[in-house]
Parts: sequence; C-alpha cells; structure tokens
Amino acid sequence: MMGPPLSRRLVAEFLGTAVLLATVVGSGIMAQRLAGGNDAIALLGNTLPTGAILVVLITMLGPISGAHFNPAVSLTFLLRRELTSGEAGAYVLAQVAGALIGTLTAHGMFELSLLQLSVKARSGAAQGFAEWVATFGLVATILLTLRSKPQAVAMSVGLYITAAYWFTASTSFANPAVTLARAFSDTFAGIRLEDVPLFIAAQLAGAVGALLVVRWLISSPGVESASQSASLPIATERAGFEELR
Amino acid sequence: MMGPPLSRRLVAEFLGTAVLLATVVGSGIMAQRLAGGNDAIALLGNTLPTGAILVVLITMLGPISGAHFNPAVSLTFLLRRELTSGEAGAYVLAQVAGALIGTLTAHGMFELSLLQLSVKARSGAAQGFAEWVATFGLVATILLTLRSKPQAVAMSVGLYITAAYWFTASTSFANPAVTLARAFSDTFAGIRLEDVPLFIAAQLAGAVGALLVVRWLISSPGVESASQSASLPIATERAGFEELR
Amino acid sequence: MMGPPLSRRLVAEFLGTAVLLATVVGSGIMAQRLAGGNDAIALLGNTLPTGAILVVLITMLGPISGAHFNPAVSLTFLLRRELTSGEAGAYVLAQVAGALIGTLTAHGMFELSLLQLSVKARSGAAQGFAEWVATFGLVATILLTLRSKPQAVAMSVGLYITAAYWFTASTSFANPAVTLARAFSDTFAGIRLEDVPLFIAAQLAGAVGALLVVRWLISSPGVESASQSASLPIATERAGFEELR
Amino acid sequence: MMGPPLSRRLVAEFLGTAVLLATVVGSGIMAQRLAGGNDAIALLGNTLPTGAILVVLITMLGPISGAHFNPAVSLTFLLRRELTSGEAGAYVLAQVAGALIGTLTAHGMFELSLLQLSVKARSGAAQGFAEWVATFGLVATILLTLRSKPQAVAMSVGLYITAAYWFTASTSFANPAVTLARAFSDTFAGIRLEDVPLFIAAQLAGAVGALLVVRWLISSPGVESASQSASLPIATERAGFEELR
Repeated sequence: MMGPPLSRRLVAEFLGTAVLLATVVGSGIMAQRLAGGNDAIALLGNTLPTGAILVVLITMLGPISGAHFNPAVSLTFLLRRELTSGEAGAYVLAQVAGALIGTLTAHGMFELSLLQLSVKARSGAAQGFAEWVATFGLVATILLTLRSKPQAVAMSVGLYITAAYWFTASTSFANPAVTLARAFSDTFAGIRLEDVPLFIAAQLAGAVGALLVVRWLISSPGVESASQSASLPIATERAGFEELR
Repeated sequence: MMGPPLSRRLVAEFLGTAVLLATVVGSGIMAQRLAGGNDAIALLGNTLPTGAILVVLITMLGPISGAHFNPAVSLTFLLRRELTSGEAGAYVLAQVAGALIGTLTAHGMFELSLLQLSVKARSGAAQGFAEWVATFGLVATILLTLRSKPQAVAMSVGLYITAAYWFTASTSFANPAVTLARAFSDTFAGIRLEDVPLFIAAQLAGAVGALLVVRWLISSPGVESASQSASLPIATERAGFEELR
Repeated sequence: MMGPPLSRRLVAEFLGTAVLLATVVGSGIMAQRLAGGNDAIALLGNTLPTGAILVVLITMLGPISGAHFNPAVSLTFLLRRELTSGEAGAYVLAQVAGALIGTLTAHGMFELSLLQLSVKARSGAAQGFAEWVATFGLVATILLTLRSKPQAVAMSVGLYITAAYWFTASTSFANPAVTLARAFSDTFAGIRLEDVPLFIAAQLAGAVGALLVVRWLISSPGVESASQSASLPIATERAGFEELR
Repeated sequence: MMGPPLSRRLVAEFLGTAVLLATVVGSGIMAQRLAGGNDAIALLGNTLPTGAILVVLITMLGPISGAHFNPAVSLTFLLRRELTSGEAGAYVLAQVAGALIGTLTAHGMFELSLLQLSVKARSGAAQGFAEWVATFGLVATILLTLRSKPQAVAMSVGLYITAAYWFTASTSFANPAVTLARAFSDTFAGIRLEDVPLFIAAQLAGAVGALLVVRWLISSPGVESASQSASLPIATERAGFEELR
C-alpha cells in the first residue's frame, strides 16, 4: 500500500517537530517565569505540556508521516528497513528544520531574541548515561507498543516522556533534533552547544540498544528464519493478559 | 442522515460553552485564591480543570451539536461547507450567550459581583502572534484528528489546550467567545475589553491558516478533483503506524 | 437480561464508596500535611487521587452494580425507572455505610481518632448554588456520556470531578453520601454537620434539573410518545462529529 | 494457546520492574532535589512519573509476560492456578533482580553511591494497615478490571497507584519487590531494611484478601461448580451501564 506523498510526510515531520519544540521551549519559559524560583513547579509546568502535546501530535500526524519527530526514531525504522536511507535522511532534515523553527516561534511569542545560544552545562558520564537510558526506554516503548497495541502508541509516548522528564537525571531529551534546537535557546530548556554531541551519541546508542533487545524479546524460537533477521516478526502471538485470565 | 433538531444543537452549544467558561473563570478564581501568590501553581490549577472539562464536554455533547463551543471552529466548518451560514451564525450566538452566562455563573458561585470588566492588559504583536499560533494548532488538531482517529477528538482537544495554556505566551484563549466573555471578568482569567479585537482577529486568521495547511497536507495528487476543492477528501488513505511496521 | 444478584451489587456499592471516601479523606490529610500551608498544592494533591480513583472504580465495578457510589445518581436512575424504589433504597444504605467505613479507614491509616466531627463551615447561598451546579454537571455528564459513548463514562466522571474540584466554590461534593461522611472527618475534606442538609438539598435539586434538561435535549420531535415519557430514547440518532465531517 | 517462551517472559518481568524502580527512585530524587523543601510538590513529582510509567510498561510488556512486576500479583495468579509454582518463583526472582538493578540505575544517573541503605523509618500498625489497604485495592483493581475491561488494565493500574500514593499513609508501596529494592536507596523513596518484613507481610495479606473478596463478588449462584472453585468464572454476565440504560 502506498502512503502519502513524501512531500506531505516531510511537512508533517516539520510541523510536528516545530510544535513539539515550541511546546518544550515555550512551556519552559512560561513555567520558569511563573514558578517563583521553585524548579520542581517549573518542571511540572514543562512536563505536562510536553507529554500532552506528544499525544496530540502523534495521534493527528501518525497516519501521514509516522510521527517520528525524532532522528533516533527514524534511524530505528531505517535499521528495520521500513524507511529507505533517502527517506530517513529527508526525515532528519525536516525534523531539524522544524525543531529550529519551533524554538524561534517560542522565542517570538515570549518576546525574546530569536537567536540565542544556551549557556546551561549538561555534561559528564552520568548525563550521558541518563540520555542512553531515556532513549532506550523511548524506542523500546515505541517498538513494543506498536506490536502490542498500535492504537496506544501516542498515549504511551506521551506518558513515557512525562515519566522520563523526572526519572532521568538529564530530564530526558531523548531526541537529537530536540537536543540541537535546545542549544539555540538560552532558557529553562537550554543546553550548551558543546554538550550536544555527548547527548546525541548517547541517544543513538540507546536507540540501537533498544532495537536489539526488543528484537530478541519478541523473537520466538522455531519462528525465526534468516530472511527475518532484519525485521520484527510482527504477526507472532499476542498473548498476555488474555491468556492469564 | 438528519442530525438532531437545530434547537437542541443550539442548546448544546449554549450549555457546553457555559460550562467551559464557568470552568475557565471559576478555576482561575479558586486557583489564584489558594496559590499564595505563586502564579505557576495558579496556572496549574487553571489548566487541569480546563483540559479535563473539554474532554468531558466534547464527549457528551459532540453527538448533538458537534461540540464546537468556539466561533473559530464554527467558522472552519462553515468554510468546509459543513454548516450553512445561518447555522454558523446561530452557533456563534449560542456560544457567546453561553460564554457570558458561564462567566456570571462562576462569579455567582464565588460571591463576586456578577458584572465586571477586566483591567488585565494583554496586548502587543507577540500576544497576537501567540493567539495565531494557539488557534492554528487547535484547528489543525481538530481537523487532523477528525480524519485520523475521530473518537480521539475530545481527548486531543483537551490535551492540546493543556499544553497551549503553557507554551503560548497568551495562555491560549484560542476562542473568540471565550475571549469576549473573559473581558467581563476582573479575575485571573480576565482580559481588557480593548485587547479583545486583536485576539479575535489573530484567532480567526489562525483558524483559516490551519484550514489551508491541513487541506494541502491531506490532499493526494491524482485523487483531487475540482468538485472536491471545498471539502476535505476524508476517505483517502489512513496510512501511518500500520504501514510503518 | 438478569444482572448480578442484589447482594453482589450492594457489596460493590459499599466497597466502591468506601474506597472513594478513603481516597477523598485520606489524600486530603496527606496533601494538607505535606503542602506547607499552600492550599492550592493541597487541593492538587486531593484532586488528582479523587479523579483517578473514580476512573478506576467505575471501570472495575460498573459491570456489577452500575458504580453509582452516589445517592443522587441512584435517585436519577430511580426516576428513569431503571432501579426500583427498593433497589434504590438499598443502594443508598450501602453507599452511606461504605462512605462512613471509608472515612474511618482513612483515619486509621493516618493514626487519627476514628470518630471525629468536622468544624469546617461551608454555608450560604453561594455554596448551595455551587453544589447545585456541581451535581447538575455530574448527572448531565453521566446521562449524556452513557448515551454518546458508554465506554467513556468512567473517564468522563473522573475528569469531570477533577475539573469541578476547582471550578465550583464548594470544591464539588456533588454526592449526599460523600457529604454526610465528610461531616465525620475534622480534616481537609471536612464539613460541619449542620451544613450538610443545604448541600444535600442542592445536590438532589441539581440531579433532578440535569435529568429534565437532558431528557429534553436528547428528545427528537416525531420520535417521542407517551410511553417514553419516563425513559430516555437511547436508541435515537448518534450524529455528531461523524456527520460533520 | 502457547505464550512466549519463559526466557522472554522473565526478561520482560526483569526489564519492566527495573524501569519501574528507576522511575520510582529516580523521580523521587529529582523531585526532592528541586522541590525546595515542599514535600507535597516532591510527592507530585514522584506520583505522576510512577503512574505514567506503569501505564506504559503494562501496555508494552503485558502481551509478553502479563506485566506483573510484583510478587504479590504473581502470587495471586499462582493461587488462581494461572501460573505454576515454578513459573511464579522464577517471576519473583526476575522481579527482585530487576528492582535492584533499576534502583542502581537511578543512583548511577544521579551520580549517587550505587549501594545504599535507607534510614527512613516506616513502621507501626498504621503503616502496616495502609499497606494492606494499598495492596488489597491494587489486586482488586487488577482482577476486576481484567474481568470488566481487559484493555483498561494498564490505565487502571496507573491511575490506582496515582491515587494510592496519596490516600494511603505509607504512600502505597504495594509490592514486595519494590519494597525490598527501596530499602537499598537512602533517598526520597527509601525504607529501612528492618521495616521491610512488616510491609511485605501486609502486602501479601492484602493480595489474598482481595482475591477472596473478588472471587465471592463475581460468583453467581447457580453458575458455580466444584471445578470452578479455584478459578474465576470470567465468562459470566458483563452487565452494568449497558443494562442500566
């Protein structure tokens, strides 16, 4: 079956990532301005909008582009051979462009300089480990929920990021396009440009790690064959609660 | 297929918009009274009820009137030729009347003067831009979710507004009837009457912008024809996660 | 079709109302203890658990007893002739007993005196009006969601109460059994015994008002007949978003 | 029908419990660090991630292992003869190992000593009673939701724990593996090792209590037979809202 034309898919990735960044950066600005110095309240005001908009965007744009909004996710689908390398590259460009425009949009709404560079340090092995965990969890959530209950992917991703903003020490960027764009915002959500490569490397490693673990987890002895080595056996048994009753 | 009689639809629009405004204004009063001067906590106490009641109202009244509660949304459906201009005009009147009654209801419950005029300034190009963004996002959410997953529209609208209260610098009025009614409440949710025209103009422009972008986004070359120029090809392919697996 | 035996239905009403009150009273105690004097934070810590547990309880006990947990709701179904007066009376007794036991359970968990009398004044016409609004909205939510999307009733009730805790000046008791039981808790959720009659009267009036408005709203000229005067024409058209596309 | 191989099921239990503990412990650390001494805000920042990740984990791993992540739940399914004692034992070992690794993961992300012992006292009859209530409610939620609406189990468990963090005086551990692992974290979520046995005993008693109450609640006179004494008659009538209309 043919999907929508590539032009529409790329615009969907661009728009979705732009709204995502406008939300991440904009709600961070709003929350920090209003929170009176209490960073837990500020993070609450940053978390709820981010989780909510992810559910909305994935629901509304999923049928057009797959609603990746994230180069680590597009890489995963490339490795699963569900995107060509040309498509994946175009997706990443659309995501990065959208992320930058979304960040500028937030700055414009809040009357800040459009072009900024963050000075917020986020470095060290523990931050890198946190990003590895965050992206491992995100990609595992996507792949396993696609298999167990595809109509729940939007809700699961939104809830996962809601949790990961708090349980990872890095507040879970988990997305190379988001990471890069946040380097250009000297606000609550910012990150120094020099810390970006560590984050992105950890994110890509987390995505690949999740792909490998999930591939093993859902493989069934006796079902696998060489021709399936690069794709997930989606149609295997969907046991679980049903069988446990 | 015939829908409910227009009288029922208008009462549904009236009631729904009234409850929406009672929630927006009432929870704003409650939240500000209790928040001890921390405006982020107050905005949390205003956001959660607003997002929650939107899900409830759209779920319960959607099958009767479509659950617009918003002249910008009714304008969108007029432009899509799914409402006649007479119906759209009646919808807008019912929405404005409901919004005003809902505001008075909130004042009554909290023992405030029923008739008030806000003195809260919300002006300037950045606020107008924020309202354009807010309404663009709201209408795009409605139109694309109607197409991708109609049963999720109520949840998506509630979550979108939850996010937009924080990521837009104007706290996302995104609704001309809401904007007008909030001018008559000198409370947390208020807006000066003189700032209302800018907000409404930006909202209507945002709605039209979303309609145009969505129309292009979901058009498919080779499917379009002249007769479809004014309506969305709803029945086109619903690709997405399914095809990406 | 026969439902579960009345004994099971009454135990379900008892258990559900007990857990509801343990949540309302218990989370109020916890939230106030931890909130450091900020009542908005305390109300957040009271709202989220109450809304959440309502979704859970209605989902799990709805198929057994209908999951009323509320004499105003049982009255509504009696007036709709879907409960006999004997069943409705037994439901109310089970609800009141459960509410009292749930309140004692909360006191026991938090090492408070089991038997208490609240001294918190909640009186005056505006409070009564708020309870009328709160219960009108609750019963309208139940009746209209039962008709438009029965599987969403649990979520809608939970979200409605989440909103109503904030938008009504009385924090939305909206339930005579809850109101009576909260008189026996001198904690965050308490109400003076002498203020209970006003609340209950307003709640019952709100329920009857909602029943009448909903009955008119979903009636269709040409469909009604004398024999339907006491029951809702459930099977009438379910128009809405679908037809608006 | 055969489910996934036991090796996959055990890895799913290990991974899920590890992510659950990383969330419980990690979000506790993050929330307490940022909350400026306000424990209600800290508990909010601990509650939302925990509730959210439970929905995600149960949705994505339920079809593989049943998504217990909790020895009290595995005990319940053992007593229902839906797990063998060998399977249940292996599940518990995987859960405990995952819980410990998840706790270490949180410590690693936040640059804390990996190995810690909590000094937070949680003792006394009221705390034990609270854990009995918490686990009774959790197991009743699982068993009754499995019967009434199996696709809602993930959401119901997440919402139940969201509520129980606040309405129980112990903040609802409700899980022996979680309890043991939290003894090895001297952070917001910790518990002294010496208080663990009371918690676990109360949890197991609560689970068995729920199993007995639910078994009676959903039994129907005239349907039961000796052969069904150890299993729930799942296929019995699913009455409820439908019949009340």
